[in-house]
Amino acid sequence: MAVGLGTLPTLHPVAGFRIGTTSAGVKTPGRKDLVLMEIAAGASTAGVFTLNQFCAAPVKICQQHLQQGMPSYLVINTGNANAGTGKTGYQDALDVCQAVAEVTGIAVHQVLPFSTGVIGEKLPKERIIDAIPAAFDALTDDGWLEAASGIMTTDTRPKAYSMQLEHQGQKITLTGISKGAGMIKPNMATMLAYIATDAQVEPALLQKILSRAADRSFNRITIDGDTSTNDSCMLVATGASGIAVSETTTELLAAFDAAVNKVLLELAQAIVRDGEGATKFVTVSVEQAASSEEALKTAYAVAHSPLVKTALFASDPNWGRILCAVGYAGIDNLDVDGLQIWLGEACIVENGGRAESYTEAAGQAVMSREEITIRIVLNRGDQQETVWTTDLSKDYVAINADYRS
Amino acid sequence: MAVGLGTLPTLHPVAGFRIGTTSAGVKTPGRKDLVLMEIAAGASTAGVFTLNQFCAAPVKICQQHLQQGMPSYLVINTGNANAGTGKTGYQDALDVCQAVAEVTGIAVHQVLPFSTGVIGEKLPKERIIDAIPAAFDALTDDGWLEAASGIMTTDTRPKAYSMQLEHQGQKITLTGISKGAGMIKPNMATMLAYIATDAQVEPALLQKILSRAADRSFNRITIDGDTSTNDSCMLVATGASGIAVSETTTELLAAFDAAVNKVLLELAQAIVRDGEGATKFVTVSVEQAASSEEALKTAYAVAHSPLVKTALFASDPNWGRILCAVGYAGIDNLDVDGLQIWLGEACIVENGGRAESYTEAAGQAVMSREEITIRIVLNRGDQQETVWTTDLSKDYVAINADYRS
Repeated sequence: MAVGLGTLPTLHPVAGFRIGTTSAGVKTPGRKDLVLMEIAAGASTAGVFTLNQFCAAPVKICQQHLQQGMPSYLVINTGNANAGTGKTGYQDALDVCQAVAEVTGIAVHQVLPFSTGVIGEKLPKERIIDAIPAAFDALTDDGWLEAASGIMTTDTRPKAYSMQLEHQGQKITLTGISKGAGMIKPNMATMLAYIATDAQVEPALLQKILSRAADRSFNRITIDGDTSTNDSCMLVATGASGIAVSETTTELLAAFDAAVNKVLLELAQAIVRDGEGATKFVTVSVEQAASSEEALKTAYAVAHSPLVKTALFASDPNWGRILCAVGYAGIDNLDVDGLQIWLGEACIVENGGRAESYTEAAGQAVMSREEITIRIVLNRGDQQETVWTTDLSKDYVAINADYRS
Repeated sequence: MAVGLGTLPTLHPVAGFRIGTTSAGVKTPGRKDLVLMEIAAGASTAGVFTLNQFCAAPVKICQQHLQQGMPSYLVINTGNANAGTGKTGYQDALDVCQAVAEVTGIAVHQVLPFSTGVIGEKLPKERIIDAIPAAFDALTDDGWLEAASGIMTTDTRPKAYSMQLEHQGQKITLTGISKGAGMIKPNMATMLAYIATDAQVEPALLQKILSRAADRSFNRITIDGDTSTNDSCMLVATGASGIAVSETTTELLAAFDAAVNKVLLELAQAIVRDGEGATKFVTVSVEQAASSEEALKTAYAVAHSPLVKTALFASDPNWGRILCAVGYAGIDNLDVDGLQIWLGEACIVENGGRAESYTEAAGQAVMSREEITIRIVLNRGDQQETVWTTDLSKDYVAINADYRS
């Protein structure tokens, strides 16, 4: 049911970053569900995490460990979120870190844990710990694709992106993977993403670049408005290319920043394209807003409206539902006579009602496509925001009504 | 698919209030789709309306006409919302009012118009105007049930409630009808409600009583989070009983206030019970909040979560989704270790995770019911709020994906 872009690009290995994927049988025997990522010494790592106050035990530990120093290993399991598990869950995640640390004799805070899957069930840590040696044995430079599959939950396909930047005859590589599917909403989702680059970047700058890029990508996608307990997005800069990116290398910094943005946006949009039950990939763009905040409010009102989303699923140009959502977005003194709403290239609303030039055939032509853009021109200022979402299909309900069975 | 309460109580006529229902063929030939309500001279009328900034033409006219004096007629059509129709729609609604006014020679501002149905299509005003004489001919004291059917859109059954108050050997009657089904969310929905009483109440006091009651009933129900362009709730006090309710009749005022609350709550809950595709009637109650606002934020986060709603549809005690929604409700410094979440009589969350006493069987027993209460005890203060909602079923998507066809 995923929308568009079925083939993955070539996934370039990143020097200084190895990945091992194996099976721990967390939920399904034989399923590859455990991923270990090894980071070379001297690398910088940055992370952004869910804002859900019931954040999972591994998320808490990631944040604590990151404050104690740079990590050497990331350990990720699927099949169990280890969220809503209280103190036991916290200890379980710590025990997994300890098991990884013991293999190479590092400190426990040099290991960051990640979990995704069902909320509220005890983590079967013994199975994970037993499988850690196999994950070490599997470590390889070329493990991206297998890891992209290894972190999937209800995803129907692996998500990955990779690109290279030229700099003075040398190359910087960026490669990343993500998983998502349901519970996708701003401020992260049950969304995991891991991006590595061989550029050399100080931790503080790397964090700044990551936070900004996540805000423009992972924090601008929404499938069902739920924000998960486990979302994490990690950016690792191994430095193995020997090319240093810093505040003083202005041009290189801009190019690197743009590349990180590009990789995150591709990974975020891939999550929307594979949203649970998705049959449409929808871009909601709000222009001429008085503030970024009101642009986002308007965009999310449209992107979250179940009535708009079911009309998208039906390929029905029921534009009145879009107008209605804009009307209740919570913008004071909305200029209802001055604003415009566009469905693809068709203007659907102007002068407070249906545009005179609009025809059902024009709306139908846009709605029949797999990729649809809704553009709202508020006529109130010069701010602009874009969010990406999906339709709401019968399959979404079926998937989520059956998820635990 | 509606949940519970299939039979209507006896609908007492209200002296001074007559209703005529007829067929104008607005959308479906032969369908009873036009309702005229006649209010005796000397009555008070109060109204509350949608906050959607793209509010429909009839809503604007209602508000303007109410400022010019008390109405003598309410005229309601289903099959077309006359929303998003710009200046033409405004004139069309005014022309319908004019046609009603001409029959008895009153001023146009003494007529209030209401429309519900598809947004954005031109009102077929000629058909409505042609049917007005038949609506006058149909006027009767006993027209409540027929009117309850006449205002339905995707409702599967009429909604009505009626009760009588004893006061010093005399009776005050309150009778009302409502319609809803989809697009139901706080600050009104495509929700129409008409309540009449033969008590005698000054307009200002009546408005105060209505606003407060609507806030505790119609503004506390949500099906899909959409707020429609057309919502209106009208309360008419004809005074025909001769019993005056005022600020000085303290005891009577309290009883009358409670009765209005009761009627509105019954009508509002009837809308939820008949929500599009509803298979569950869900009460979400938040206790021990620091403020009413945070109680509502928490309740709506749970009530709007598609993941919670699909779990309700599946009768799946996937309590982690409720915990997750509470976690992202936007409450700063949530006491995750001190709060409790209850599913019916089963405590599901305490001490930051699954309650020790919880068993899947206990959760399953609650979830299998048609009527379910989710209770969240925030441990932060003494404020409490309750909202009512439904599950999200495959039929919801089917109904809304097919609505225009």
